[in-house]
Amino acid sequence: MGKLSMVEMSHRLAAGSLSSRQLVEEALAAIGDPQGEGARAFMTVYAEQARAVAAEIDAQRRKGVIASPIAGIPISIKDLFDEAGQTTLGGSTVLVGQPAALRDSVVVARLRKAGAVIIGRTNTVEFAYTGLGINPHYGTPKNVYDRATGRIPGGSTSGGGISVADGMAAGAIGTDTGGSLRIPAALNGLVGFKPTQRRVPLDGVMPLSTSLDSAGPIAWSVADCALLDAVLAAETVRAPDAPPLRGLRFAVPKTFFQNDLSEPVARAFSSALERLSAAGATIVELPMAEFAQAPNINPRGMITASEAYAWHRKYIKDGADKYDPRVLARIKTGEAISAPDYVQLLALRRDFIRSINQAAAGYDAMLMPTTPDIAPPIADVLKDDESYYRINGRMLRNPSVVNLFDGCALSVPCHQAGDAPVGLMIAGIQNTDHRILAVGRSIEAVVAPRRS
Amino acid sequence: MGKLSMVEMSHRLAAGSLSSRQLVEEALAAIGDPQGEGARAFMTVYAEQARAVAAEIDAQRRKGVIASPIAGIPISIKDLFDEAGQTTLGGSTVLVGQPAALRDSVVVARLRKAGAVIIGRTNTVEFAYTGLGINPHYGTPKNVYDRATGRIPGGSTSGGGISVADGMAAGAIGTDTGGSLRIPAALNGLVGFKPTQRRVPLDGVMPLSTSLDSAGPIAWSVADCALLDAVLAAETVRAPDAPPLRGLRFAVPKTFFQNDLSEPVARAFSSALERLSAAGATIVELPMAEFAQAPNINPRGMITASEAYAWHRKYIKDGADKYDPRVLARIKTGEAISAPDYVQLLALRRDFIRSINQAAAGYDAMLMPTTPDIAPPIADVLKDDESYYRINGRMLRNPSVVNLFDGCALSVPCHQAGDAPVGLMIAGIQNTDHRILAVGRSIEAVVAPRRS
Repeated sequence: MGKLSMVEMSHRLAAGSLSSRQLVEEALAAIGDPQGEGARAFMTVYAEQARAVAAEIDAQRRKGVIASPIAGIPISIKDLFDEAGQTTLGGSTVLVGQPAALRDSVVVARLRKAGAVIIGRTNTVEFAYTGLGINPHYGTPKNVYDRATGRIPGGSTSGGGISVADGMAAGAIGTDTGGSLRIPAALNGLVGFKPTQRRVPLDGVMPLSTSLDSAGPIAWSVADCALLDAVLAAETVRAPDAPPLRGLRFAVPKTFFQNDLSEPVARAFSSALERLSAAGATIVELPMAEFAQAPNINPRGMITASEAYAWHRKYIKDGADKYDPRVLARIKTGEAISAPDYVQLLALRRDFIRSINQAAAGYDAMLMPTTPDIAPPIADVLKDDESYYRINGRMLRNPSVVNLFDGCALSVPCHQAGDAPVGLMIAGIQNTDHRILAVGRSIEAVVAPRRS
Repeated sequence: MGKLSMVEMSHRLAAGSLSSRQLVEEALAAIGDPQGEGARAFMTVYAEQARAVAAEIDAQRRKGVIASPIAGIPISIKDLFDEAGQTTLGGSTVLVGQPAALRDSVVVARLRKAGAVIIGRTNTVEFAYTGLGINPHYGTPKNVYDRATGRIPGGSTSGGGISVADGMAAGAIGTDTGGSLRIPAALNGLVGFKPTQRRVPLDGVMPLSTSLDSAGPIAWSVADCALLDAVLAAETVRAPDAPPLRGLRFAVPKTFFQNDLSEPVARAFSSALERLSAAGATIVELPMAEFAQAPNINPRGMITASEAYAWHRKYIKDGADKYDPRVLARIKTGEAISAPDYVQLLALRRDFIRSINQAAAGYDAMLMPTTPDIAPPIADVLKDDESYYRINGRMLRNPSVVNLFDGCALSVPCHQAGDAPVGLMIAGIQNTDHRILAVGRSIEAVVAPRRS
């Protein structure tokens, strides 16, 4: 299966030169490779069920019945989405033994209806709480880059990112509360898409922050992400046409997002802007001083912690010792926050959304680096709590702002082939998802490294 | 102006048998009547400005320019709506001396655009916090019924209700967070309409509870309320046609709303149901056990207090002594509420909304008494804190549930002419506003007392 895009798979399946059963066998082989990261990328693998679904889809196809362009393609889902009969663990041990879900989450139901083959449930940072991808219970899958060193996969959709990068699934479905789709995409040379929150229903998804959670895909290309996004949003499953770059206007905010970039990210980012400009796009660097408010909207993760603690407290009560202590410490900060403080932050956020909606008017997208650093070695992150939280803060810094203004954003690779992966974030205000996916295709064609 | 409905005024204005200037003079005379309640119903009266606007509207009309069916009609607005150049006080003294609003609230701007003559700003319970209508700073306007005794006007839109009942305005614009439009309507024999929250923009309206606030009208008839509602929602200003009662199905929930009704309310309510049934409507009494959850969604007003305290704390800090102590005590309960508790209540509320949306499917409306009691004497309410809070709780009990399920509701008078006013609540789930106004007209034609 390798790095074949879903669009390519779809064509070959339609032409009969590939079967769903073959794709599933390749995915299962990659997962089962003892030298690979399958054991850490997946919580559960549905080998027999996936084979059966693939056989059924292949049989339907022979009769001319094709549920959607993604029918027969192996997709991984993050261990936050309910599936009837499975207990959703959220990468935790504290929920082991809890009752199984009674029904599929809306996302899973829509994937099944579209004929996706759900290959398994992927590992996540416990309860999706941080952006590094470390999981002390089920292991930390290694980044696809520089595997010898062992770098972080990015999170929280850690297993989802690696499942795609290593050919264990053609696409991954995850959640994004502060970058959990875009960080693994950026750090592994993949494309991630975080939709506007209300675009994809979160019924049956384990919540982290009810204000900031969203659900979306990681895949090899913007077109693949657009197909999966359309399935999740129950729209016609079709990738949008890429508009010509000449005539498009992109805003590059000088405030906030470009602070303290590491050298490889700064270099890849400015090279990407140059290539876009050379290809005819108008690049407008401007202050967008509204973004100076970003650190005040969810300071120390107060919105997230208030909402997470409300959900977790009954489990913390009897099972605190089973939590990842670094995740627990973050969640427990919610206990002491007052309702009026929380209400005031939500009001500040509403003003922030309004101000960004105004500031972004007249541009086809905003461009910024997804993360200020490439993936650091796992050992650096695990050195001590200070390192863990500091690096986590840097990883979440840029992508989390999009959740705060309730926008949508792609992360598209923009490094040179062979270099450490770097993500270019293509962001839009709320409900501009179609437009961001369309212009994202045009941008990707110019900035993404050639796939080997 | 008396009890002429806005629809009737509109016809006479169109026919030239009435002028806006006449209506304004009548309204001003009623407000200025030393035997009347004008001094307590209004915070500010715009005598000269109203005369000037009326003259302008009359002049336009002579040229054939008519902004809307409500053009030239005197309307009062509650002292919660910003008007450029005025300080919104919310019936308080603590905000005296605060800067004037820089621009009109959306509601006021839409009224002006429709040609409404804003006659003045009406008194309200301080910060709209309770349902009785008591204001220790600016006085408590007396209910239109049994004025000799001096009964509560209902609140919080106390001045708004009395401004219509006493012919000081043809319609009143107020807010409703737990019944603040429907309670004064019910207690004074008027019609009040609380729309679905998102229907009318709250920009420039002093908040009480950002989750539960809504803005709407009080007037003499459902058709009048429909006209004002259409103006506030920026829709075509036209009252909906009343459908035939035969064929309509009304649900009468046995759970919650009919507990402990006082005798006059029980009598008027069952008589209204009988008349509707006799007129051909299908009345379905059924448990709707979902409503048993109602007391758990906003227990002790926790959602309201959390949100109110967030807004008020900066004023309480230096001006606590200027607050109505009974209002201050309610607001201050928000200080000690935790963010996770608040978040959990909002989650419970979302489930409640879903359950009511399902339970109400298949009915044209739900019917219940607006309040379980007729208006009590002001002296009874002011006896002591226990009386004040107990009676306030009873007044808010039924109407506040509609805010909790984010619905819409009319209160329509259903008593016998000459008796103490009783309100029939006609409630629907979110976004059924047009339907509720339409069936409300049909119901009103059968249950409302003949106006003298």
